[in-house]
Amino acid sequence: MVNKRVDLTAAQIEHLKTLVTGQVSTNETILDQHGRDESAIPPVRPSAVVMPQSTEEVSKVLAYCNSEKIPVVAFGAGSSLEGHVLPLFGGISLDLTQMNKVIEVRGDDLIVRVQPGVHRVALNEKLASSGLFFSVDPGADATLGGMAATGAAGTTTVRYGSMRDNVLALTAVMADGTVIKTGRETRKLSAGYDLTRLLVGSEGTLAVITELTLRVFGIPEKMAAAIVRFKNLSDGVTAATAIVRSGISIARCEFLDAKCIKNVNAHDGLNLAEVPTLFFEFHGSPQGVAEDAASVKEIVEEFGGSDFEWTTDEGARRKLWQARHNAYWAGIAANPGKRAVSTDAAVPLSKLAEAVTVAEEILSKHPYPFSILGHVADANFHCFIVTDPAKPAELEDVRHITHEITMKMIEMGGTCTGEHGIGSGKIQALEAETGAPAVSIMRSIKKTLDPNNILNPGKVFN
Amino acid sequence: MVNKRVDLTAAQIEHLKTLVTGQVSTNETILDQHGRDESAIPPVRPSAVVMPQSTEEVSKVLAYCNSEKIPVVAFGAGSSLEGHVLPLFGGISLDLTQMNKVIEVRGDDLIVRVQPGVHRVALNEKLASSGLFFSVDPGADATLGGMAATGAAGTTTVRYGSMRDNVLALTAVMADGTVIKTGRETRKLSAGYDLTRLLVGSEGTLAVITELTLRVFGIPEKMAAAIVRFKNLSDGVTAATAIVRSGISIARCEFLDAKCIKNVNAHDGLNLAEVPTLFFEFHGSPQGVAEDAASVKEIVEEFGGSDFEWTTDEGARRKLWQARHNAYWAGIAANPGKRAVSTDAAVPLSKLAEAVTVAEEILSKHPYPFSILGHVADANFHCFIVTDPAKPAELEDVRHITHEITMKMIEMGGTCTGEHGIGSGKIQALEAETGAPAVSIMRSIKKTLDPNNILNPGKVFN
Repeated sequence: MVNKRVDLTAAQIEHLKTLVTGQVSTNETILDQHGRDESAIPPVRPSAVVMPQSTEEVSKVLAYCNSEKIPVVAFGAGSSLEGHVLPLFGGISLDLTQMNKVIEVRGDDLIVRVQPGVHRVALNEKLASSGLFFSVDPGADATLGGMAATGAAGTTTVRYGSMRDNVLALTAVMADGTVIKTGRETRKLSAGYDLTRLLVGSEGTLAVITELTLRVFGIPEKMAAAIVRFKNLSDGVTAATAIVRSGISIARCEFLDAKCIKNVNAHDGLNLAEVPTLFFEFHGSPQGVAEDAASVKEIVEEFGGSDFEWTTDEGARRKLWQARHNAYWAGIAANPGKRAVSTDAAVPLSKLAEAVTVAEEILSKHPYPFSILGHVADANFHCFIVTDPAKPAELEDVRHITHEITMKMIEMGGTCTGEHGIGSGKIQALEAETGAPAVSIMRSIKKTLDPNNILNPGKVFN
Repeated sequence: MVNKRVDLTAAQIEHLKTLVTGQVSTNETILDQHGRDESAIPPVRPSAVVMPQSTEEVSKVLAYCNSEKIPVVAFGAGSSLEGHVLPLFGGISLDLTQMNKVIEVRGDDLIVRVQPGVHRVALNEKLASSGLFFSVDPGADATLGGMAATGAAGTTTVRYGSMRDNVLALTAVMADGTVIKTGRETRKLSAGYDLTRLLVGSEGTLAVITELTLRVFGIPEKMAAAIVRFKNLSDGVTAATAIVRSGISIARCEFLDAKCIKNVNAHDGLNLAEVPTLFFEFHGSPQGVAEDAASVKEIVEEFGGSDFEWTTDEGARRKLWQARHNAYWAGIAANPGKRAVSTDAAVPLSKLAEAVTVAEEILSKHPYPFSILGHVADANFHCFIVTDPAKPAELEDVRHITHEITMKMIEMGGTCTGEHGIGSGKIQALEAETGAPAVSIMRSIKKTLDPNNILNPGKVFN
């Protein structure tokens, strides 16, 4: 039972080298690279980094680590915002980036099979020639394995769903090295317990994902983008929720506050008006898209939206959405040398305007620069708060503030995380949100499937 | 550990009466009503029927049954096609139909909270006045609790998803009486293990669902129906898969063979041409719907579709889809005194035409009347095979035939069940499909959460 830091012996490292064709490294630079992610959580080095190249090698490594009670943290792009890949108890960082093959694109089945180390942008580049795309788009160019493990989502979730909806089947290695296959290459499935969705979002604590079958979509006939400005935060998000309720088909609907717009202007060379703004995207037939945009214009104007602009120009559309995707890094770039803490609450649709206002009020009482943006059609929004990594007390203070915000969101019927996951920072929030009995069921599943607690210990729960 | 039939003692029945405000019955008619479903599987009587009226009462009953090792089978509409509600090991049938309140319709949040005994048609009648609908529509007027427990889907799944996609949160009672809450009233969630989706489709073997929060949709601005005829099965389903690949937005796309059309003509007083037919529905803006229908017409004609008709007339649309929903009962009505066995395979999209052809070839070698219909946009189809309940050997023979079909579908990469679940009849198929290691993980979860095996024993696995 792993419950304190484990450093590998020289003999253990030598043995691991016999199990994989890739590297087993204790090089300090490599350890450092595997000891941090995009969160502001202070880094923790693994004892070694192991790079398997196949499911079989992952299986051998896990069987060995299980017998030796060595913690194993799966590692992809390191783009987690919740410290998921930090090896809090040492042991090995299992780097899956050498398993980066797109195994099969099956356009006729609208599926693709990939290894876990494939990055989402690379996948979409590969799919484009077949007229297909993979829809889930967190800001970062994450790996598909990591996206599945954290239950990632993105700007298109309102239309195409999150990882929970788009992972059809998995190959995964359990803590003892057992290889399982879950799901099928079918669009519907009702065969036994939904192990696929149990593993998706389990944050590397139940198994290591070594292959994914994903649902892909045909690139729509027509795509159009639109943008509309508001006087304040609350009007903008209220308009967004009214659009969702109207049933108008939107592919994306994102909110950026004035600060975000300022940051993306600077980062991406744009000159958008620096006011609260909604970005939209529409997918469909040419007339359908135009009609949807016209209906949206009508609704947003009822809520005080102004300067509605829309375009079907592909270059303009891409530039707009690239800017949106860069919002996180634009925020970092605007604050050189700083790190960011991001909240990730989602609330019931009708509570969104109130939730954003409450968050803004809390943040305004403190000295830390912040901006607010979000997937408002899903009532999921992020407060992006800047902190100085050289001042640990600041991070501690920001953590208290985000916890205060999170607890308010939970009180409103919301969740502490719409898409980033629990990691190590929101363990207390998970219990407040879902209640001790449900967390106890989660724990009992963890204990059954990973009795030695080797898989990503210290995440989801203590 | 429940492993043989349990009949309750008089004292146990008396004790159960102290735990619920509703009935505890051993009346033979009531026992009979709770010993069968819509499948052709021979009935099995429970030892008693218990009718709780609240989560608290369910909790008390389960805690007691767990301590006494009395099997508990949750019962709703009894519309399962896989014997789910048959109490194979006796014990009690826990009838949840008195828990039939629509607790709250929250149009602003696009959610509804219901007790498990609410029927889907009643829910939609209630929602209509708010301009909302609940999308999942199996043929039967099932209860929402039963639909969640079996992971039900229906004709609109291609557009709006199945129960896995539309159950946001649950209250459930575990085998020992512990009440848990899973999920939140939010459109996105990434907080801990996805217990909601572990319970959805677990067929009453892990917990008893006592409250559901469901996602609802606004009734679309415009709905249109279309119908198109084909010379043979294969052309029709190939056309359907081509439409899915084209990305055209369809809300429904159903295939009925000539026999099905004949049955629904007789049952619903229609005079549709008795040839293989695709039914479509489109939801959206007026021009979008017209454009989508025009695009579909173009594609189906490439595949030999003829006599394409479409309508935006609400009466005509409703009549067509009512006929489709009645297809199962129309098949029963065409064969008085008989029962039906329905297969439920789903295959990868590109395999659908071959799969349907293989199934038809196998069935054609045997004397049993059959028809084929399906949710072809999801590559999920049903062979509806008529059998005489008075001749048990016939049922046995039909079971062998359906097993042969199912195994062929699994060989093609398909699943034994797209939406009906495993029940007691497809336990062997589940193992063939997903492999012994994954089934072993399912079993270990079952053992952890229901160590005495009181919850629906004999279903999903032995």
